[in-house]
Amino acid sequence: MRNAPDLRVYLVTDAEQCESMGRSVLETVEAAVEGGATCVQLRAKTSDGGPFLDEVCEVANAVGDQVPVIVNDRVDVFLAARALGVPVAGVHVGQSDLPAKVVREMIGEVAFLGLSVGTDEEARIAASEGVADHVGLSVLRTTATKTNTPDVLGYDGCERLARLAVMPSVAIGGVGIDDMAPLKARGVNGGAVVSAICCAEDPKQAARDLLNAWSSAPDAGRQEATGVSDR
Amino acid sequence: MRNAPDLRVYLVTDAEQCESMGRSVLETVEAAVEGGATCVQLRAKTSDGGPFLDEVCEVANAVGDQVPVIVNDRVDVFLAARALGVPVAGVHVGQSDLPAKVVREMIGEVAFLGLSVGTDEEARIAASEGVADHVGLSVLRTTATKTNTPDVLGYDGCERLARLAVMPSVAIGGVGIDDMAPLKARGVNGGAVVSAICCAEDPKQAARDLLNAWSSAPDAGRQEATGVSDR
Repeated sequence: MRNAPDLRVYLVTDAEQCESMGRSVLETVEAAVEGGATCVQLRAKTSDGGPFLDEVCEVANAVGDQVPVIVNDRVDVFLAARALGVPVAGVHVGQSDLPAKVVREMIGEVAFLGLSVGTDEEARIAASEGVADHVGLSVLRTTATKTNTPDVLGYDGCERLARLAVMPSVAIGGVGIDDMAPLKARGVNGGAVVSAICCAEDPKQAARDLLNAWSSAPDAGRQEATGVSDR
Repeated sequence: MRNAPDLRVYLVTDAEQCESMGRSVLETVEAAVEGGATCVQLRAKTSDGGPFLDEVCEVANAVGDQVPVIVNDRVDVFLAARALGVPVAGVHVGQSDLPAKVVREMIGEVAFLGLSVGTDEEARIAASEGVADHVGLSVLRTTATKTNTPDVLGYDGCERLARLAVMPSVAIGGVGIDDMAPLKARGVNGGAVVSAICCAEDPKQAARDLLNAWSSAPDAGRQEATGVSDR
């Protein structure tokens, strides 16, 4: 199996949400990483390549040596940042972005490659292609952050897709602190949050609380061994 | 000086405009190339990477051996297409896209690299950086195709920026058949058209007419020699 990032508390940035709280993306990320975020994905669906590259370089130069910084969608921005010597760790693509197989060829074997899956079929294909090192289970539930989202998976769907994908997984879509234990119990490897950190009064504390919630929850194996289940 | 594409009749695609005329982008491009378009830039500002890659592959496989097919903005789509063995010729970037210097490193020395310039300063920087092989003079005049456009250059501005950039140039922004002779007289190397072909009743004939208008016009050197001027 490929090497995957630590997915436990996976921050996905939303510039508008950060700004609505009076913080820059960089400030939000720095606080979250200080609090315990284990991975950061930079997403800027509406930015042009130039400003997005600037943001990626700024954030990765600040925290890229502490946690993996992953670039959403724009493989060229990742490649450009890497060419500039910036410590970016990988790329995340969705089903309508560049095909994972092609992206893997472009970024090489060492970089992280996450792939969003929303159906059993997509999870099976991710497993059989074997080019991604982790999957985003998209979406746990509906949310205001992403429009045009696929069907809601719920905990059952997340567990099923995680098993079908046969690689580390992180759930996304309305993930909050109360989801951490149930997700862990279902064998998912982390929770990807947007508003739970970007819209938090104190993003450092929010990340710390999320990590504590994850760490203090029993893991899937132990639960099964003790017969405990939240189904 | 670097090798640059034949810029005389440079088609920039707009999927909505093509569809409004009941044609696909591919059908429009094929007709235009048959008529005499000398270069094709595929632009899809609102498409995700996957569908845009599909379009680039489809079009470049159809006409990429006849004319240069240039990918707008998405360097990763260009690199992906090239990795798939598709005959794409280069990339075009604007001032808010990935920096031309970084793009040149990513695409190598052989691929075409066009850069939009809209001010004297941008044209001077393009010249001093020396990484682009041609510039898009943006914009000749205002147009409905692009929103948020820079200042209008007019013929005088196009001529001035083309000289400052010290490389082949193509004007864009509301370019129509009547602009071909004046642009040629000002030392510009071609006209980039969107609606003049995408919205034409007959895109093949439109491209032919544009090429004829260019070819039958006296070139800048001859005009100066005979004392003719359109100023």
